[in-house]
Amino acid sequence: MRMYDLIQKKKAGAELTREEIDWMVQGYTKGDIPDYQMSAMTMAICFTGMNERETGDLTLSMRDSGDTVDLSSISGIKVDKHSTGGVGDKTSIALLPLVSSLGVKLAKMSGRGLGHTGGTIDKLEAIPGFKTDMSMEAFIAQVNDIGMAIMGQTADLAPADKKLYALRDVTATVDQMSLIASSIMSKKLAAGADAIVLDVKSGSGAFMKEFDDAKALAEAMVKIGKHAGKNCRAVITNMDEPLGRAVGNAIEVREAIDTLKGKGPEDFTKLVLALGSRMVLCAGLAADLKDAEDKLKTAISDGSALAQLKRFISAQGGDPSVADDTDKLKLAEGVMELKADRDGYVQRIICDEVGICSLMLGGGREKKSDEIDPSVGIYLYKKVGDEVKAGDVMAVLYHNDKDKGNAALERLKAAYHIGDERISPKEMILDEVD
Amino acid sequence: MRMYDLIQKKKAGAELTREEIDWMVQGYTKGDIPDYQMSAMTMAICFTGMNERETGDLTLSMRDSGDTVDLSSISGIKVDKHSTGGVGDKTSIALLPLVSSLGVKLAKMSGRGLGHTGGTIDKLEAIPGFKTDMSMEAFIAQVNDIGMAIMGQTADLAPADKKLYALRDVTATVDQMSLIASSIMSKKLAAGADAIVLDVKSGSGAFMKEFDDAKALAEAMVKIGKHAGKNCRAVITNMDEPLGRAVGNAIEVREAIDTLKGKGPEDFTKLVLALGSRMVLCAGLAADLKDAEDKLKTAISDGSALAQLKRFISAQGGDPSVADDTDKLKLAEGVMELKADRDGYVQRIICDEVGICSLMLGGGREKKSDEIDPSVGIYLYKKVGDEVKAGDVMAVLYHNDKDKGNAALERLKAAYHIGDERISPKEMILDEVD
Repeated sequence: MRMYDLIQKKKAGAELTREEIDWMVQGYTKGDIPDYQMSAMTMAICFTGMNERETGDLTLSMRDSGDTVDLSSISGIKVDKHSTGGVGDKTSIALLPLVSSLGVKLAKMSGRGLGHTGGTIDKLEAIPGFKTDMSMEAFIAQVNDIGMAIMGQTADLAPADKKLYALRDVTATVDQMSLIASSIMSKKLAAGADAIVLDVKSGSGAFMKEFDDAKALAEAMVKIGKHAGKNCRAVITNMDEPLGRAVGNAIEVREAIDTLKGKGPEDFTKLVLALGSRMVLCAGLAADLKDAEDKLKTAISDGSALAQLKRFISAQGGDPSVADDTDKLKLAEGVMELKADRDGYVQRIICDEVGICSLMLGGGREKKSDEIDPSVGIYLYKKVGDEVKAGDVMAVLYHNDKDKGNAALERLKAAYHIGDERISPKEMILDEVD
Repeated sequence: MRMYDLIQKKKAGAELTREEIDWMVQGYTKGDIPDYQMSAMTMAICFTGMNERETGDLTLSMRDSGDTVDLSSISGIKVDKHSTGGVGDKTSIALLPLVSSLGVKLAKMSGRGLGHTGGTIDKLEAIPGFKTDMSMEAFIAQVNDIGMAIMGQTADLAPADKKLYALRDVTATVDQMSLIASSIMSKKLAAGADAIVLDVKSGSGAFMKEFDDAKALAEAMVKIGKHAGKNCRAVITNMDEPLGRAVGNAIEVREAIDTLKGKGPEDFTKLVLALGSRMVLCAGLAADLKDAEDKLKTAISDGSALAQLKRFISAQGGDPSVADDTDKLKLAEGVMELKADRDGYVQRIICDEVGICSLMLGGGREKKSDEIDPSVGIYLYKKVGDEVKAGDVMAVLYHNDKDKGNAALERLKAAYHIGDERISPKEMILDEVD
């Protein structure tokens, strides 16, 4: 086989066989196929596409390019969850203890974030003592013991994807649906769960700005999951304004805890219940979505979800008392308020801009080596559709550096659009694919 | 400027500015832009194309990426000629002394060939003593002295093209019209002539198999030439069967010499007159094409073209007596005949296959370091449209190795198609662009 011929074939719009895709992915991972041939291939794919079978096979080849996690020693149905990311996305921190409290087995590997805020791992580390580095044995033992564990990704999962993504990132070939879908799914499949629930964000703060693109990505990923023999479904959710009210690290953990106490923001609670009920259903622990959602609401109201969160925090070395007293999750002492300069209604909050404010305060990483400040963040008192009077506090910003605070405040101000007419916020759950 | 943005722009089908193209070409030449970004760019160009202005600018940037030849110290209009190549293409060897005998100034740089036979330089070296390596000063002095010179390309002409072509060659992006046209023309423009006449081949033995593609390439190159302020025109010519009757090196020089004596094959003579008359016209040395062609025919019949060939051979250290006695251009002693096995008419001679026979005999190079055997070759007694009787000699093959000879003979036999109906050979001159 010659890479030249495969490029030529794909350029002409022909279908690559399973063997060809596998040969290419393994050859590229080993370094036998040079970057300049692979970038010509990915650019050709941007124009001629890959069909469902090719996309599935590409994903399986990338899954098999490195380690895969064997969860077979955990009894029961293991369910994984993935979000395409957005601003204020603390979903896993509330969602996983909640569904775990109903008996769903969760062995989740998670990455650190590059972007506006930290990833789930970074956010959890805002809890005093919390550790996410553990051996695979300890990870599996913890799931067998308390039903859930979250560890930082240490295994060499889907190295082909890692290498390919880095190449796509510098050759303007990131935005191709089959390549995006296979990239995400190769890592999920390597992580070994039986079922996968996907949260595909759509809107100004999401990777997929347009609903149709988000839907297409959801469909592509669900098809890949099924191609790999997994129970897989997706929910398409709104990311046109930040999720919930908290953006940062410690401040997001606070909001996740509040949500498990039944005091979370309405939009975030809806999302958690929507994803949670589908995970419970995938695990075969409810008759239907309605039944699953009822069980989840009960787990919140009877305290079992919060109890599971504490068990989880303890198991990973953290201080579980933060769940009872969220003030133990320290926020930065510098506080600035964003006040409305007119009467009206919040018509829009430019989602990415709020994320950038968090980054400016030190809540995220621009490059891998950056340190995150868990205490900084933003709390949005007013969201889209809310009425404001001139002088009302719309948002509060927590900082450890006045200059950074002022710069972020300026930017946050520009992110808020206030107008005369009342706007209805978008629905949280836009669509689903299963 | 960032290469990422330029790739993105071209991928979206937008136009690159002169500055962007220049930045990209110079950056790539210097190694600041990596191969993997450039191959993504060329693949994007394969899909979204480049317009006339972009193609022209790309050519000028590549021309300016290295040395350019300054021919200003040669008086008169300097005309260059380029052929896209084919089987049996000894055109320059007859054409250049012919037009030079009328006063057209020719300072031609030529390359060695990779392929079926040698390039013009290799063919000329079949003449005992002939040298093509000379200094730029000697080259220009010779043109001022006798009106013409052909030197091996030693200057670093259009290094961007060299690097880009090597990349395209391994990433399946060779067949894009703007890239092909700019590649050829960047070197031609760097070689410094005032006018360029292009011979674009079309047919089974040509790079462009289809007439429409050959025409499109001719149009693209002529536009580039004009964009660069040069007098430029192209002729589209038939390469569906080998040009003339001789394929090899010494054997092709013999045929070129015969042609200057008025005894050349009809198709080859037509081609030489067609290209020659256009070169004479470009140099302003004739009133119109008819007038130019009449002058060329006179130069053949009165011996002045042959005299100019001898002058040229002498000036470059060769033995001019080969022009009077072509037997001095030694052919290999092993001779094999291809005989017709039936009565009929030659309907087709698969052009590329005849080329491969020459290569098998040792007449060409598969890789740069291969040595060419100038004495081997093929002479085609029968061409398309000719009647044959069973037992007639259709072709003769000159070899220095019986095994190679037998293998080539077998292949040559398969290249000849004989049928019952008489076929008219295609016209030599198919079209022109000016």
